[in-house]
Order: sequence, then structure tokens, then C-alpha cells
Amino acid sequence: MGHVNLKNDERVDQLYSNNIKIIQSSEVFSFSLDAVMLANFANIKKSRHAKIIDLCAGNGAVGLFVSNKTDGQIFEVEIQPRLSDMAERSVRLNDLEKQMRVYNADLKDSITLFEKESFDDVLVNPPYFIDKPNSKKNPNPYLAVARHEVKTNLEEVIDVSSQLLKTNGKMFMVHRPDRLIEIFEKMKSHRLAPKKVQFIYPKKRRDANMVLISAIKDGKAAGLKVESPIFVYDGNDYLKFIKAILYGK
Amino acid sequence: MGHVNLKNDERVDQLYSNNIKIIQSSEVFSFSLDAVMLANFANIKKSRHAKIIDLCAGNGAVGLFVSNKTDGQIFEVEIQPRLSDMAERSVRLNDLEKQMRVYNADLKDSITLFEKESFDDVLVNPPYFIDKPNSKKNPNPYLAVARHEVKTNLEEVIDVSSQLLKTNGKMFMVHRPDRLIEIFEKMKSHRLAPKKVQFIYPKKRRDANMVLISAIKDGKAAGLKVESPIFVYDGNDYLKFIKAILYGK
Repeated sequence: MGHVNLKNDERVDQLYSNNIKIIQSSEVFSFSLDAVMLANFANIKKSRHAKIIDLCAGNGAVGLFVSNKTDGQIFEVEIQPRLSDMAERSVRLNDLEKQMRVYNADLKDSITLFEKESFDDVLVNPPYFIDKPNSKKNPNPYLAVARHEVKTNLEEVIDVSSQLLKTNGKMFMVHRPDRLIEIFEKMKSHRLAPKKVQFIYPKKRRDANMVLISAIKDGKAAGLKVESPIFVYDGNDYLKFIKAILYGK
Repeated sequence: MGHVNLKNDERVDQLYSNNIKIIQSSEVFSFSLDAVMLANFANIKKSRHAKIIDLCAGNGAVGLFVSNKTDGQIFEVEIQPRLSDMAERSVRLNDLEKQMRVYNADLKDSITLFEKESFDDVLVNPPYFIDKPNSKKNPNPYLAVARHEVKTNLEEVIDVSSQLLKTNGKMFMVHRPDRLIEIFEKMKSHRLAPKKVQFIYPKKRRDANMVLISAIKDGKAAGLKVESPIFVYDGNDYLKFIKAILYGK
């Protein structure tokens, strides 16, 4: 295992299902279940020629978690230097320097940083909340940027993803169900056809609080599949399916 | 109970949860679980001043099933004379002539038959399948019209529903998940804002095969709710929730 230095506020967590170690910080940023679910949902290309990009990468969780699902190259783009630095050290911690590369860059510069229409898969866990003038944001500035559309927004995320993808390339996104209609509309206007959605419910008899979406660039608009629902908690405990992802089978 | 004559192929079935009797025919038309689920989902106005319309009414199942949820008037519109006749006799069979009235009419004539913008709620279980020139239709002509977009289509169903609804009136529809994106698009272009969806899965670990949608006329576009999923079968048997609807608690 690669040696890296940890800052005072940092710790190393492990995702047991794929043996990945990841640098976390309760003061700055920790990955959430959303990242785990997106990585599990994404049916990325396996070939060693595959090119995969993780946008709004945060501390690199999604890219790290899918690294054992593909022999392809994984690129991570994160706008916050403190977070992309954590991601970069986690790549070294897992000896994944040959497969993964982290870029500290604004999402919208990805289209000049990388060749357009060159990626097989885009993964993205974007900020969920619209940044209204009067909206209450997280007092932690790292989390405010990660959760609110301060530095980017849904339109830009989908536009950039589409520009990076090859024809028939796939976009995998996790978002909130209350923005589903807007997501479908913006995908359509950027040549992306939603093909699968899967809803995640905190527990039984509750409304969904997460949605996973896969879309194909220049795909046919017809035939959305709504996959079997996922429940996270059963009373107080994680359900079996989630436990298997977090702790291994 | 009202006395009605049954034709040779007809039988009377009962929905136990609300004590409704309904004339069915295996040769012509029988209501399906879709109608039961739509009636259960629809949060219609209760007041005696409420005006509720059931379009693509078939043998009248949805309107009959919601009759004990409201003191308002229920109108049923069905294009096929044989089916609207069954619906009309079921209304008499349940002594509901004062609350319900059946019209044998083309859906698109509803906007001249009734006053526009006069309804509080529209209920509709429309034909699901696009009528392509080469599409295989049911050899039973009654079912072909009920299931395929031969006499109407999604665009017209949503257009007419919107024209009939008052501002803030609600549309409740059951349809197939593979047409969800199209449903959202057409609702938007006809002043209807989808507010709730609920997916129905045949059993666990299967894709959804039904979706229930409620929309508000001239409502705000934001804030879709995805309600807790419904499973129909557990192995071979109906699940408790479905049993309670079909057979009473």
C-alpha cells in the first residue's frame, strides 16, 4: 500500500466490499451513501481501452469505488483543491496511480482539459440543491459547494457530461427525486436518453429520497426501465443489500 | 340493490373492500388490477359539490370504486357502446344513479359534452400501447381498443383532461413506466404539473410494470414526490396491501 501523509482532521475509512481505503474528514468532506449507491449502480465499461470520468468527484469516492469494476482509465475532476488533494492521496494510498488520475479543475473546463466525445462513461454525484439568493447553505464552505449549486448547476453538469461522452456512451448520476422531471428535460435537450432509473427509499412506507439514473448519449428516447426499489434501513439497521456493499458479503 | 339484466357472457364480481358489484365479461371486458390501484391512489375531492370524471371508463370500474370516497358527482365516459352499457347497468346494480352518470362518447367530445374547466378531478386508465402500423393487437376488438391507442392516444388523453380540469384540479392516471418521460413532457405542455408518482412492481427484484401519477393543473413544476413502492405478488400470492383492497381488511 502506498504511503501518504494525513492532515490532523483526516482519517482513513475502508469500503469493505471492494477493499478500497479512502481519506475522509469530518471537518471537510466524507463520502455519503449516495456515492456508494452510484458506484454500485454504474454499469461501466470493463475493457482496458475504456475511458471513465468522475465529475464533482469530492474526495474521489465514486471513482475509487468503481476502480475494481473496470480495467479502463478513470479520471476524477474536483473543483475544491482541499478535496481533490484528498482524492489524489487516496489514489496513492490504494496504489491506483496507473489507473486513476485526479484533476483539480472546474467542471466546465473539462471540455478543454479533455477531448470531447472521448469518454465511455461519465459518473456524477452533483450538488443537489438549487442555490437561491435566500437559501440556507451549509456553514461549512466545503459542504456548501458540494451540496448546493454554487459553482455549477444541473444544466451545466448534464451539458458537460454529454459533451464528454462518445455516441452511445453512458451517463450515471445520483440525484434527488424531486428534480427528476427537470433531469429528464435537461438530458433530452443535451442528447441524452434516460434508460434506467432506480429509486432509493430510506425505509418502507417512506417517499424515495434518492434516484439513480443512467442515460445513453444519442440513444432512443423510448423504453425507460424502473428497476426494483432499494430500501436503506430496516428500523434502525442497514438492510442486507446495503450492508453487503458497505461491509462486503 | 337495483335489478339489472345480464347478458349470456356476463357475470357480477364484487370488490370487497368497498362492497361494489360490477358487471364483467371474460369475452368483452373485465377490470384489471390497474383500475383498482388507480381508484385506491386517487385522492379525489370529497365535497358534495365536487365534479369528478372518469375517462376511458371501460366497464366503469374506476368510477364505481371511488364512489364511496366522495359525496360529489361522478361522470363516466366510454367510447365502446357495449362497455358503457355494462357500466351503466353496474351503476344501477349499486343504486348509484343519483351520484353517477355514464356517457357513451368519444373522449375528445367530452370538451363539448361538458363545460370546460369545470371538473375537480379527472381519473383515467387509458390504453397503454402505441398503435404502430405493424403492432400486434389483441384479436378481441373490445380489448384492442381498450389496450392500444386505436381511438385515442396519450397526447389527446392529457389534452382533454387538462381542458376539463379547473385550475388546481387534479389528474390521476395509471400507465406504464416505459412511457413516463413522454407523460411528463405532455403534461407539461398541457399545463399539468406532475406532483406524485408511485411505482408498482409485480414482485421484489423485478422492474416496475405500472406507474400511478397525480398532476395539478397550473401547479408549480417543482417538487415531485416518489411515494413508497407497491409490490403485487409475494411468490404466488397477492401481498397483504393488495388483498386488503380486493377483499377488504
